Amino acid sequence: MKDIYIADLANFEEGKLFDGFFLVLLKQQRTTKTNKPYLNLILGDKTGQLEARIWEPGDPRIAKDFERGDVVKARGSASRFDERLQMKVDQLRVALPAEVDKSDLMPSTTYDVEGLWKQLMGFVESFTEPDLKRLLTTLLNDPVIAAAYREAPAAKQLHHAWLGGLLEHVVSLLTLADRVAPHYSLLHRDLLLTGVILHDIGKVRELSWEIGFEYTIEGTLLGHIQMGAALAERTMDSLPGFSPRLKTLVLHMILSHHGKLEFGSPKLPMIPEALALSFIDDLDAKMQAISSEFEKAIRENKGPDELTGKVWALDQRQLLNTKRWLNEGGK
Amino acid sequence: MKDIYIADLANFEEGKLFDGFFLVLLKQQRTTKTNKPYLNLILGDKTGQLEARIWEPGDPRIAKDFERGDVVKARGSASRFDERLQMKVDQLRVALPAEVDKSDLMPSTTYDVEGLWKQLMGFVESFTEPDLKRLLTTLLNDPVIAAAYREAPAAKQLHHAWLGGLLEHVVSLLTLADRVAPHYSLLHRDLLLTGVILHDIGKVRELSWEIGFEYTIEGTLLGHIQMGAALAERTMDSLPGFSPRLKTLVLHMILSHHGKLEFGSPKLPMIPEALALSFIDDLDAKMQAISSEFEKAIRENKGPDELTGKVWALDQRQLLNTKRWLNEGGK
Amino acid sequence: MKDIYIADLANFEEGKLFDGFFLVLLKQQRTTKTNKPYLNLILGDKTGQLEARIWEPGDPRIAKDFERGDVVKARGSASRFDERLQMKVDQLRVALPAEVDKSDLMPSTTYDVEGLWKQLMGFVESFTEPDLKRLLTTLLNDPVIAAAYREAPAAKQLHHAWLGGLLEHVVSLLTLADRVAPHYSLLHRDLLLTGVILHDIGKVRELSWEIGFEYTIEGTLLGHIQMGAALAERTMDSLPGFSPRLKTLVLHMILSHHGKLEFGSPKLPMIPEALALSFIDDLDAKMQAISSEFEKAIRENKGPDELTGKVWALDQRQLLNTKRWLNEGGK
Amino acid sequence: MKDIYIADLANFEEGKLFDGFFLVLLKQQRTTKTNKPYLNLILGDKTGQLEARIWEPGDPRIAKDFERGDVVKARGSASRFDERLQMKVDQLRVALPAEVDKSDLMPSTTYDVEGLWKQLMGFVESFTEPDLKRLLTTLLNDPVIAAAYREAPAAKQLHHAWLGGLLEHVVSLLTLADRVAPHYSLLHRDLLLTGVILHDIGKVRELSWEIGFEYTIEGTLLGHIQMGAALAERTMDSLPGFSPRLKTLVLHMILSHHGKLEFGSPKLPMIPEALALSFIDDLDAKMQAISSEFEKAIRENKGPDELTGKVWALDQRQLLNTKRWLNEGGK
Amino acid sequence: MKDIYIADLANFEEGKLFDGFFLVLLKQQRTTKTNKPYLNLILGDKTGQLEARIWEPGDPRIAKDFERGDVVKARGSASRFDERLQMKVDQLRVALPAEVDKSDLMPSTTYDVEGLWKQLMGFVESFTEPDLKRLLTTLLNDPVIAAAYREAPAAKQLHHAWLGGLLEHVVSLLTLADRVAPHYSLLHRDLLLTGVILHDIGKVRELSWEIGFEYTIEGTLLGHIQMGAALAERTMDSLPGFSPRLKTLVLHMILSHHGKLEFGSPKLPMIPEALALSFIDDLDAKMQAISSEFEKAIRENKGPDELTGKVWALDQRQLLNTKRWLNEGGK
Amino acid sequence: MKDIYIADLANFEEGKLFDGFFLVLLKQQRTTKTNKPYLNLILGDKTGQLEARIWEPGDPRIAKDFERGDVVKARGSASRFDERLQMKVDQLRVALPAEVDKSDLMPSTTYDVEGLWKQLMGFVESFTEPDLKRLLTTLLNDPVIAAAYREAPAAKQLHHAWLGGLLEHVVSLLTLADRVAPHYSLLHRDLLLTGVILHDIGKVRELSWEIGFEYTIEGTLLGHIQMGAALAERTMDSLPGFSPRLKTLVLHMILSHHGKLEFGSPKLPMIPEALALSFIDDLDAKMQAISSEFEKAIRENKGPDELTGKVWALDQRQLLNTKRWLNEGGK
Repeated sequence: MKDIYIADLANFEEGKLFDGFFLVLLKQQRTTKTNKPYLNLILGDKTGQLEARIWEPGDPRIAKDFERGDVVKARGSASRFDERLQMKVDQLRVALPAEVDKSDLMPSTTYDVEGLWKQLMGFVESFTEPDLKRLLTTLLNDPVIAAAYREAPAAKQLHHAWLGGLLEHVVSLLTLADRVAPHYSLLHRDLLLTGVILHDIGKVRELSWEIGFEYTIEGTLLGHIQMGAALAERTMDSLPGFSPRLKTLVLHMILSHHGKLEFGSPKLPMIPEALALSFIDDLDAKMQAISSEFEKAIRENKGPDELTGKVWALDQRQLLNTKRWLNEGGK
Repeated sequence: MKDIYIADLANFEEGKLFDGFFLVLLKQQRTTKTNKPYLNLILGDKTGQLEARIWEPGDPRIAKDFERGDVVKARGSASRFDERLQMKVDQLRVALPAEVDKSDLMPSTTYDVEGLWKQLMGFVESFTEPDLKRLLTTLLNDPVIAAAYREAPAAKQLHHAWLGGLLEHVVSLLTLADRVAPHYSLLHRDLLLTGVILHDIGKVRELSWEIGFEYTIEGTLLGHIQMGAALAERTMDSLPGFSPRLKTLVLHMILSHHGKLEFGSPKLPMIPEALALSFIDDLDAKMQAISSEFEKAIRENKGPDELTGKVWALDQRQLLNTKRWLNEGGK
Repeated sequence: MKDIYIADLANFEEGKLFDGFFLVLLKQQRTTKTNKPYLNLILGDKTGQLEARIWEPGDPRIAKDFERGDVVKARGSASRFDERLQMKVDQLRVALPAEVDKSDLMPSTTYDVEGLWKQLMGFVESFTEPDLKRLLTTLLNDPVIAAAYREAPAAKQLHHAWLGGLLEHVVSLLTLADRVAPHYSLLHRDLLLTGVILHDIGKVRELSWEIGFEYTIEGTLLGHIQMGAALAERTMDSLPGFSPRLKTLVLHMILSHHGKLEFGSPKLPMIPEALALSFIDDLDAKMQAISSEFEKAIRENKGPDELTGKVWALDQRQLLNTKRWLNEGGK
Repeated sequence: MKDIYIADLANFEEGKLFDGFFLVLLKQQRTTKTNKPYLNLILGDKTGQLEARIWEPGDPRIAKDFERGDVVKARGSASRFDERLQMKVDQLRVALPAEVDKSDLMPSTTYDVEGLWKQLMGFVESFTEPDLKRLLTTLLNDPVIAAAYREAPAAKQLHHAWLGGLLEHVVSLLTLADRVAPHYSLLHRDLLLTGVILHDIGKVRELSWEIGFEYTIEGTLLGHIQMGAALAERTMDSLPGFSPRLKTLVLHMILSHHGKLEFGSPKLPMIPEALALSFIDDLDAKMQAISSEFEKAIRENKGPDELTGKVWALDQRQLLNTKRWLNEGGK
Repeated sequence: MKDIYIADLANFEEGKLFDGFFLVLLKQQRTTKTNKPYLNLILGDKTGQLEARIWEPGDPRIAKDFERGDVVKARGSASRFDERLQMKVDQLRVALPAEVDKSDLMPSTTYDVEGLWKQLMGFVESFTEPDLKRLLTTLLNDPVIAAAYREAPAAKQLHHAWLGGLLEHVVSLLTLADRVAPHYSLLHRDLLLTGVILHDIGKVRELSWEIGFEYTIEGTLLGHIQMGAALAERTMDSLPGFSPRLKTLVLHMILSHHGKLEFGSPKLPMIPEALALSFIDDLDAKMQAISSEFEKAIRENKGPDELTGKVWALDQRQLLNTKRWLNEGGK
Repeated sequence: MKDIYIADLANFEEGKLFDGFFLVLLKQQRTTKTNKPYLNLILGDKTGQLEARIWEPGDPRIAKDFERGDVVKARGSASRFDERLQMKVDQLRVALPAEVDKSDLMPSTTYDVEGLWKQLMGFVESFTEPDLKRLLTTLLNDPVIAAAYREAPAAKQLHHAWLGGLLEHVVSLLTLADRVAPHYSLLHRDLLLTGVILHDIGKVRELSWEIGFEYTIEGTLLGHIQMGAALAERTMDSLPGFSPRLKTLVLHMILSHHGKLEFGSPKLPMIPEALALSFIDDLDAKMQAISSEFEKAIRENKGPDELTGKVWALDQRQLLNTKRWLNEGGK
């Protein structure tokens, strides 16, 4: 575990020295007014990212050869400039692989990934529809896909925007779907759960998460809906005798899961399972976004009688933390 | 039980005589081209409604004194005019109260109302939050409200548009909410369930269901959201020491449950419980609408490979019955 | 060639006998008020469709075994019922294959299909980008696809809704694109033309045109955008060494060609070629719709000073035929 | 009256000393880069608000015990930092109640509140409909409501955003309504005027104006429409024999006065009086916003040939001051 | 005055003979099923229009030479066909000019046109701004324009859709504007009134009202906003020394009076007078539409407890007649 | 030609002296914290604009009498303040007319204006429709209009926002229109080309480009659509015997060329030529905006694998430069 995190620096005494491991998200050459060269960096870890300055890039204690994407060990102090926190770095070297855990450098799920994966596979195991079971077993046993599925964030920033976020979101949805399915007799449970597992699978290619979370160019031009549908279709085509009707239904669920054309779904949900998927996917994403917002409010020392900031995922609405307001609020 | 229902007439041999009990939904005096007076009626029962003509209103076998809202016994034959089915009535008298069961005359829930009511009260019984329990016990023990709550439809025509529909919809939602609540730790279960029970309570005054389902003038001008909020507020104000915060939260859930301003909610959901309520309310209404549509398609002899008609509650989308298509569809 | 067409009947003397070949689009058993069975048909040919009645289905001159989808020879008379034209059929038999040309029975392009196909292949021949040339040659040399591509309508009813309409629309677009491309140096001509040829290729599976123009269930649930992208992707994957960048760009053009999310494109055009494609596709479809509307106005004897009816493809706008108004209009 | 106002500081010679009374709107502890603690304040009065810094919080001339919401006497100088005006405070003490007039500390109506109140009561006096007169007399004689009604701003910032703004807006509307009512014979004058007086009455609880203008949490979750309707309903329920129809109409006017669902009205105007109210309310708010904007332009030395800034209340439109442009504009 | 009006026929005893003068709005040759020729007409007068049939066009009592646009004297009887009223005409001749008053044949204002015109000119007389007075005097003294201004309807069907409707609407607006102007000191009264008089002046060319109310082709392609602005501009250009600023402001008011781009105004109101004009114009049109709707409801024997039909000019809203409901409604 | 351009300063060594000619776009008196007066300027040339400070306005090397709109010669150095580039000016004098070329001071078309003009006149020369030829010859031979037409930008900032931009845009459109017209037989080529030449002619009065590109007040209140239509109408009215139908059509094309009401067109395209014009106008504007964006990306050293910034004219979409990505992109 790291000694100090970006988030810690906010409450750090100004001027006091820190030591820490960070991921280099940006590295730029710049010049001061007096024409002195300096380095402008953005350093990040799992708790956030911060601008950093190296005013003496020629100092022998500053490594020459580090690049964007490297993990570095940096020593320096934090200060506030025009109300904005900033790091001043005095020493910096590239970290050794053994020194740092990747999960410390980018935001990651707080759940145990192996545990989540087992839950996911447990749901697949419970299927009674053989074609859907074959489809998911084949896909999730592909080592490249499985590795990516465990790591991928669910989004660049809206919700579950952390390593393992996709898996965490899917397992939450599976649990929910498994509770909702028996409530409506017209829902085909295995089909609904298949939709849950596959709806965002295109994100393993739409996003890259090596150095920060970014859209790939292919992801930008095609989108995870198309990429996921193509992956699912290719897999179903590879399974001899796979039901063509199930194939159509599975693809329809992936295509329609955003629920509205203006959200990028080329088709609206036209089967009960697709409708239910679009509802619980949206609900789960919003509940997670609210939960993160409430945690952030506590981290920022907002009181129980204060609304949150405006929440992007909820149309810039502000929210009230019911339980805190009832339990801790003033009179 | 009635002998013959409106819906039966569609497959009735033209010209064959029928006998039946119906509710008079409309009664108009008219004149033929040759200046002969006749009566134009709309007769209904739980399966639908149909136009009827009395060509000989002076016939002694036709009662003189029946009015809109009466239940009548009518004898006549069905025929088709310009593709539209129509009843020709030869005899008609006002029915005796003992002759007919009200539930035969208007569409009603297929569930046992007492059973639904017990489930509802069971959920209230399970509350741990004393103020919310007091609120619901007080309201639902009010005999006028309780009677109306058991009878009211959930809507004029969109979903659960039958006697007992409100109760059926609420009990379905309670079951669903009780499954969703433990899934998200930030949800206050009793508050969510209170929202479920009260969100549409204004419909007991917005709608009238004595003779067909209609909006009252008060309902048209004020709406069930305002009427429900007023009823809830008055009840909470009558309970000594009721928590003002819970009062605000309960009212907020009623006000915001349509989820969007353009759907008539004056406020958007700003607490997790209100957001969850708006999602499951919408989902349950749509699932019921789909279910009705699938039943209608079967009634109309549509094949498993045919889409339903355009569904009003789903923006005129057509739907596919997944299970039928997979199980019974052609190749 | 047929002797008489549906469109001719509009100006036909009522009661006069006709003889003709038609496609049976619907066949229903019905009963009159007096309980006599009769047949209700919809008969069609390339000029339109019309309701027909067989009042004596037991007449030996009426074939017993014809079905929806059959081509029949019918004799009867046309009449007007409540302002609507209707056919009364007295004799009917199934036509022999040799008696009738399929292109007489459904609306077809007025262009020579072979000529259009040669133009299409000529454009492909002119490509300098080898991968795109390989892709199109492979696809268009596939006999199943080629046959469907020649026959498919471009839409169910909006524009180019006739056999060969897709090909006609594409060739018109190719000619236009070939004029526009050199005007903007940032356009990659072969890529733009590839987009033109492939943008609607999914329609060969989205629509069926055996008996009237219908959406297939697969087409309804997936849409021609997804179906076309899948077909293109599969073909590109089958070509060894196909440039992955060109693959992404080709797929992007198919996905984005509707130009707006609310028109069912999951991605907006993000490259110049995709933007240009979405413009000329929309323009060509609207120009064809206007042209059809002007022809219809002449057919309906509208004067040069009258606007057309409301045009669906142009948001219910009415249009003025400039040239006619200037040349033939009153003062 | 105060010696110096926030607005005066904009044209103040930098560095020159000032003395003044201000309301403390924010008080924060902070630390400089060199770790020295300082205080960051926001001070306000009726002309605006400004950031202030106390660099020597330990100085004995700086009071220790002042808090957000206190009125203080401050001495210091104004300066510009990065183009933004800022106060540097050298001495500060809590003001004595007698030293300062509350109306100097927050923006207030420029009209005489007593005069406005008399006009309001005069309109009520003129009513001929006894129930409506009873309703308004009862409500406006309630000392708590009357006090709040005189003080409340009409909005947080859009229009009439000052103490007494609600009353000023209502009296302007009453005068206007009284001119419009006789013009349309279908308008019930007393009902229209009742709507004017009550439409925004919920703002006395939706907003708090003790220290700046803020929404209360109850106001945020319920809104002034619901809060006003509840207050009116409770009052009408307390009046024996109050006409139930008038009650429905009065509530309908409050609910529908925003004129559109997307502006937060749960009902659209469905009676002539509600339609007229929504029009004149909107017009009066916009005319006041324009008037303020024109005054601001003059204060900012904009010329008669310049448009105003973008006006929030008019969809970011810019406006031209007709009279100034005609009278003072260049050629 | 005519003996019988279209509106009277609705309550006419079927089969009884009538005599009356009507305007021929449509004349078509048709044939019965049995191939007999007949005439299909639409006859109209100020109270409405109705379909008419002449079954014996060869009868010597039927004039041969009448055309669309003629006024005719017709004798016949009314009957109902499939619930729709229809006239059967037995005798028909072209009317003599002296026999009928044009104002009986098309809906006309119920006000005295001369009186309205005097009011209009009185307002112009009251102007103190000489250029605006010159402009209006010039325009309204043009005999062609003055004649058209007195006759033109204000719309094809939405509001004031009758002869003299434009003038009636403008005089109502002038009275209203004259009451509103002194209420807001930033309004230039003469400019506002000029806007009122000119805002719809283009309708004298956009519409034709010789035979029913129709859009001219020029009106359809250019619209009354552009046509009115062109007319006003041409007139102002003809006045020596007319203030260019007033010209810009007058044109701006005409262009922006619909208040929204999507209602066909190419500019939004950017001066106070234009904003006020767009509000009162909209209000007056809607109040007139409501008033007509209430009259129609009474004509149709709707009770005081019934809502009106859906009102097109108010987004298909239904309305309640406040005064009737309060005074005559049941309990 | 100028020695140094605003755009050069971005890569200028900080502190190094420059000399250059600039247009003064803004001049303001200001005071430092220490009460010292200084001048704040915005200086511009064809490559952009930049803030400049004169810290010693009393220095004899600083001219006293320069104003906004003057061209000045300035000497100083560039520096970066809080990441923003800024000029520090030490010497400044008003430039002599002979010293500087106006086209260096504002962005100008890179095409030869005379060449463009000849192309434009060549198109007019090719017309066969005599009235349209007369109209354009008359308008374009007007020396005031011709001069303005050569200079005007096509927009304030969206596309072709440079001197000569209108002419450049129109010539590009003419070439395109001339290729499209023969492709659709229902297009009247000369009418379409007339629409192209006149559609934006109002911009010669809507915009001023003496000192930067600004909207005139008249332009803001009336818009180029109305101003262009008025200019065209006046010219057509001056031509004896000009066809009234062509007049209506020409005006309709100007009015409708934005294609949508919400884009400020008071009429939608209702003739084929107007529809085609709205398409190619929009396409050409967007292609130019994309082209500029690609050039900017290269200027900013963006790599071939990077998307552009968000493009305003394309709804904030980011774009990919196809050709660069294919030719220069990494693997």
